Amino acid sequence: MTPSEMLAVYRAELLENVVPFWQRHGIDSEYGGYFTCLDRRGEVYSTDKYMWLQGRAVWMFARLHRTVDASRGWLDLAAQGADFIRRHGREPGGRVAFALTRDGRPMHVQRKIYSEVFYVMAMAEMAAATGQEAYLDEARATFWQTWELWNHPERLGRPILSGTPRGTTLADPMVFLGMIEDLAPLGDDSRYGEVIERMLAIIARHIRPDRRLVLENVGLDGEALDGPAGRLLSPGHAIELAWFLIHLARRTGRDDLIATAIDVMDFSFDRGWDPQYGGLFYFLDAEGRPPTHLEWSMKLWWPMTEALYATLLAWTLTGDQRHLRRHDLVRQWSWDHLRDAEHGEWYGYLDRRGEPTNELKGGPWKGFFHLPRALLYCVDLLAARDAAPSGT
Amino acid sequence: MTPSEMLAVYRAELLENVVPFWQRHGIDSEYGGYFTCLDRRGEVYSTDKYMWLQGRAVWMFARLHRTVDASRGWLDLAAQGADFIRRHGREPGGRVAFALTRDGRPMHVQRKIYSEVFYVMAMAEMAAATGQEAYLDEARATFWQTWELWNHPERLGRPILSGTPRGTTLADPMVFLGMIEDLAPLGDDSRYGEVIERMLAIIARHIRPDRRLVLENVGLDGEALDGPAGRLLSPGHAIELAWFLIHLARRTGRDDLIATAIDVMDFSFDRGWDPQYGGLFYFLDAEGRPPTHLEWSMKLWWPMTEALYATLLAWTLTGDQRHLRRHDLVRQWSWDHLRDAEHGEWYGYLDRRGEPTNELKGGPWKGFFHLPRALLYCVDLLAARDAAPSGT
Repeated sequence: MTPSEMLAVYRAELLENVVPFWQRHGIDSEYGGYFTCLDRRGEVYSTDKYMWLQGRAVWMFARLHRTVDASRGWLDLAAQGADFIRRHGREPGGRVAFALTRDGRPMHVQRKIYSEVFYVMAMAEMAAATGQEAYLDEARATFWQTWELWNHPERLGRPILSGTPRGTTLADPMVFLGMIEDLAPLGDDSRYGEVIERMLAIIARHIRPDRRLVLENVGLDGEALDGPAGRLLSPGHAIELAWFLIHLARRTGRDDLIATAIDVMDFSFDRGWDPQYGGLFYFLDAEGRPPTHLEWSMKLWWPMTEALYATLLAWTLTGDQRHLRRHDLVRQWSWDHLRDAEHGEWYGYLDRRGEPTNELKGGPWKGFFHLPRALLYCVDLLAARDAAPSGT
Repeated sequence: MTPSEMLAVYRAELLENVVPFWQRHGIDSEYGGYFTCLDRRGEVYSTDKYMWLQGRAVWMFARLHRTVDASRGWLDLAAQGADFIRRHGREPGGRVAFALTRDGRPMHVQRKIYSEVFYVMAMAEMAAATGQEAYLDEARATFWQTWELWNHPERLGRPILSGTPRGTTLADPMVFLGMIEDLAPLGDDSRYGEVIERMLAIIARHIRPDRRLVLENVGLDGEALDGPAGRLLSPGHAIELAWFLIHLARRTGRDDLIATAIDVMDFSFDRGWDPQYGGLFYFLDAEGRPPTHLEWSMKLWWPMTEALYATLLAWTLTGDQRHLRRHDLVRQWSWDHLRDAEHGEWYGYLDRRGEPTNELKGGPWKGFFHLPRALLYCVDLLAARDAAPSGT
């Protein structure tokens, strides 16, 4: 497939398959916000509203409005969701809730920071899309609240006992870089620089070039931890990290990060791609011991969509054909196994062989985010390449 | 296979395959307690000690000593585990910890009562095996502490918010019946009767004969709940409930429970057995909507071991051949798919087709309990039948 063909395919997939599925089935026009628990045909099988996915859908619709087409009503779809989470998103203690009832009553609060993270991303992108200061103020305030929580994990409510493992988990620096990627272009805040440096220092401790792997969890001084958590790998997560680092490098001029990002992609592909059935394993053990996650060998949609974009980005950046070959492999496998040609959108959960085990198109963890974001980013890359005076 | 052949097979499986695997690989003779994270060959891949499984292993070794053979050193293996959890099992707040480091420092506390439950069962069986009052005192005290926690769930630390679903989950009345099954024979406590009645009233609301199913979660007044949690079925769990009810009926003379238990087994088998690949599904949705558990279609060891015993019990009780046919089916499938003839013990986690996805023999959730308990109970039943003046 030529780059121009890819552009056409990805644009059509985004605008004619994925976005319409969520516009048609995912909007709660009665209470506001989004339905994400959608079955194969798009029928709602739960009206509960998961905040990770509410925030992500706000982000996605607002980003589509801002960067693709301002005439399709996407800002209204984003704004009604932003309004819903601003009215209902916080439980009485001030935390952003993890799940809400359809009408916005808080159900659960996680002892993790990620509900706050996706709330920040929603507000930041609404600020970018509308220029309204109120969104930006709320994005910034919640960002620093999240930073305080991260620095004082005891406030999350999980008891820290004498044997509780201490250390860092790769998701945390990644989500801070993700929030800053959205916030930094909206106006200078010199304090982001300090957060970035701290997060890059942590990330550096998770990447082990000598062992050609990226550890999901390490000790406070970067030491390897014993046991399954200490040996946990998530190849798709590491591949997502790679493009986060490339974006940061491009925004800040830190070109040294690019070589690291390419290394991470190489490690993660070599180790994470299933030689027998194709696709990326969800989890692996660094030493080949038994993974304790029952779903370790399943093929999920999001590692593949992260890889779809990351490989294309690496290819446009370096011109190296190995990235393009991987990109073609990922696209082919995804179209063969994940895409539902009959009812739209993609399956989320396949067994190791690549057959759907769960027919849902959305759920508590899968919403309007990873797939459309990857497609949008691929379209942006390929369109910019087309528009450039001379192609690479 | 004749009943006598079954008796020989199950006894050999218990005493020559399963117990030796755990005796050889699962004892921490340095710090006390048990290793449960064992790979296919029995090698330890994590030294963390999960309290559910520590308590269950104490129970199992003590029960083997008391009912099978007092000359094999099993009481020592139980006592060293009981000593470990008595010394280290409680975190500073008084809760029983969920996980400990190898040397006994508390790592995590669950916002659920089940660590307490298996602590109670360990102490109760140690009391039965040794006659020592100290174990009985601790079992009783922790039982009533658990009862208080269950009656005041806010003390478990999970915030109850305006949208938090209220209701009952089938596991709770089951574990209370399980604890009482062990405690009641150790001496009269008239208060158990009150707990049993409350738990049976809850269980009755989870069983829906009109729909031929057992709901894992219902509302406080027994009403069906919306959404995936409200439609959740776990056929193996319901089959375990069936034999809990039969045991209670036999101990207390409440013969009315037996018909209910047989109904539950019929519903659960008809719905839970995979017509395509065999084995019991782990989870199902009552209305055929998408299950949200990624592992719903996997075949786990414990639903099969529960079914192995429950079907044999139902057959010996009723003489009805349909229970024996199911028993033969469960045994055949289990021996074909779950049993590891090469390295001992059984796999825990198979994909829908019945192939192991995780080669571990033990982990954070699988230990020395469901399989040996089911084999022991089957042996007891078949041996009693052999010894009876006339066979059924």
